[in-house]
Amino acid sequence: MDATKHLRHALGAFATGVTVVTTKGPEGEDVGRTANSFSSVSLSPPMVLWSLAKSSSSLAAFRDADHFAVHVLSAEQADLSALFAGKAPDKFAGLQVDRGDAAIPLLRDCTARFECRTVHRYDGGDHIIFVAEVTRHDHEPVSPLIFHGGAYGRLVRHAETLPTDARDDSLVPDDPIYLISRLFYRIRGAAAQERRRIGLDGPAYAVLTALGHMGALPEAELIPAASARGDAVDAATLADLAARGWIANGARIALTDKGRQVMIPLIAALKAAEVEALSPLDMNEIRVLKQLLARTAQDDGTGWPPVPTHTREDA
Amino acid sequence: MDATKHLRHALGAFATGVTVVTTKGPEGEDVGRTANSFSSVSLSPPMVLWSLAKSSSSLAAFRDADHFAVHVLSAEQADLSALFAGKAPDKFAGLQVDRGDAAIPLLRDCTARFECRTVHRYDGGDHIIFVAEVTRHDHEPVSPLIFHGGAYGRLVRHAETLPTDARDDSLVPDDPIYLISRLFYRIRGAAAQERRRIGLDGPAYAVLTALGHMGALPEAELIPAASARGDAVDAATLADLAARGWIANGARIALTDKGRQVMIPLIAALKAAEVEALSPLDMNEIRVLKQLLARTAQDDGTGWPPVPTHTREDA
Repeated sequence: MDATKHLRHALGAFATGVTVVTTKGPEGEDVGRTANSFSSVSLSPPMVLWSLAKSSSSLAAFRDADHFAVHVLSAEQADLSALFAGKAPDKFAGLQVDRGDAAIPLLRDCTARFECRTVHRYDGGDHIIFVAEVTRHDHEPVSPLIFHGGAYGRLVRHAETLPTDARDDSLVPDDPIYLISRLFYRIRGAAAQERRRIGLDGPAYAVLTALGHMGALPEAELIPAASARGDAVDAATLADLAARGWIANGARIALTDKGRQVMIPLIAALKAAEVEALSPLDMNEIRVLKQLLARTAQDDGTGWPPVPTHTREDA
Repeated sequence: MDATKHLRHALGAFATGVTVVTTKGPEGEDVGRTANSFSSVSLSPPMVLWSLAKSSSSLAAFRDADHFAVHVLSAEQADLSALFAGKAPDKFAGLQVDRGDAAIPLLRDCTARFECRTVHRYDGGDHIIFVAEVTRHDHEPVSPLIFHGGAYGRLVRHAETLPTDARDDSLVPDDPIYLISRLFYRIRGAAAQERRRIGLDGPAYAVLTALGHMGALPEAELIPAASARGDAVDAATLADLAARGWIANGARIALTDKGRQVMIPLIAALKAAEVEALSPLDMNEIRVLKQLLARTAQDDGTGWPPVPTHTREDA
């Protein structure tokens, strides 16, 4: 690794938010660049800074402008960061913008926006450091986009410290499996009432969920897969479900449409219990939880179908 | 909220790493301040900046020094951040330091360190902006400490995008409960072999784990608590466990020492399966997972004991 690359890696160890800085160019065109060199400087007067490479095609616009706006991107705005870091000729095409001082374009749905008046343009090696007074700002308390080590990330707050003397039994390890079990049993327990209402015992429920998770299976695979869900399943369980019309026996055993219908209120009950159980977490934290769990499910040898490690909202 | 407080909140929306900047004071004493205003400026020449309040008691030391060092803190170093943000008279007491150019104190175990030679001291409102050339640096690729909205946090990287068409069955929702179940069954399944070797069936295992999690319980509470673990438990299960000497019957039922001994290899097997299952995650991600799960366990109405939301390593 050459010296510059090594330095770049070391500098990337300092995590930052991501901003898009916008202004008006010499022809009155909208100009915007992604920057993570933003920093707050002064509270009184309110001042911020950012720096821009002297080689940037946007240098003239920012150097000659008296005003610019800094947009701190939310965790959902990685696409905006990529857009304004790229080379698209008209980056604002299709974006809805507000207009600030001097008709500067203001992007929407950011976690913070600062309208600024340039006060100093300082030399900083191969960059110019713009120091500006904040003339107006707004703020939405949503989760921020983070940049670190050349990649995007999300933030998880440090939790409050609780007394740890509540846990001194060596059979209650401070372990993920303990916490996972607890959450699992809580959600499944809350849905058990609905299961009993439908008249599904544990083994029958295990068969239906196994088929729901794994699709049609030969009996020789279905029985161990269902039994792995906690209740001993045998041929009698399958015969009973077939008699009720919920599964169809063939070379492979599959859920019938009627079987799928039976599962709908159960899944709704599970979903409601899940929403209740996860209510201490905010949306960002739930996504992080899902991403981490999904990562553990890659190539996990369970025979369950592959899961995406990316939620749709992040795509 | 007054205007300054409002601005401070908005500025806090930009996430940053946390640094400690050190130098030598006029009397040759070690000086250090926590700062999150660090920013990389230039690659050629290599330059960085940070800013310090003109009102800071450390201003004279940094203003008059030709050299300083910037330490980018790792996720494990929140205590160092608090130390150097505080008013302790000798912040370096008890810290092991290396020595850099001009005998500047260099802190250990940071994710990056930059030794710097001051090049510019620029005015920035109520702060001075120090721009410096990096003369030496090192870097350990460990997880960074993050500061956002006045609180510390940890980083979780955005996952790679995987094809999402692997999941089109409405009975396999893209839900936390699906992912939690999958991980739960996988870990428990891996430990089942050990369970069978000991001769524990599902209901007996459920009783022992319920007692392990919840301590001694009256029979009327133990049976539903154990049954909630997935297998129907009845008085015969308890009688069998008592006959084996693993639980003691009284007003409350409790594990005996022998019962605890029986659980040790089981817990070891669960732990081994857990380590294997979580191997796609790094240490930081496992901590985040634990913190999020622990948050869901607060006041969850399960009757299980309270869990700390802070892992010991973070305390």
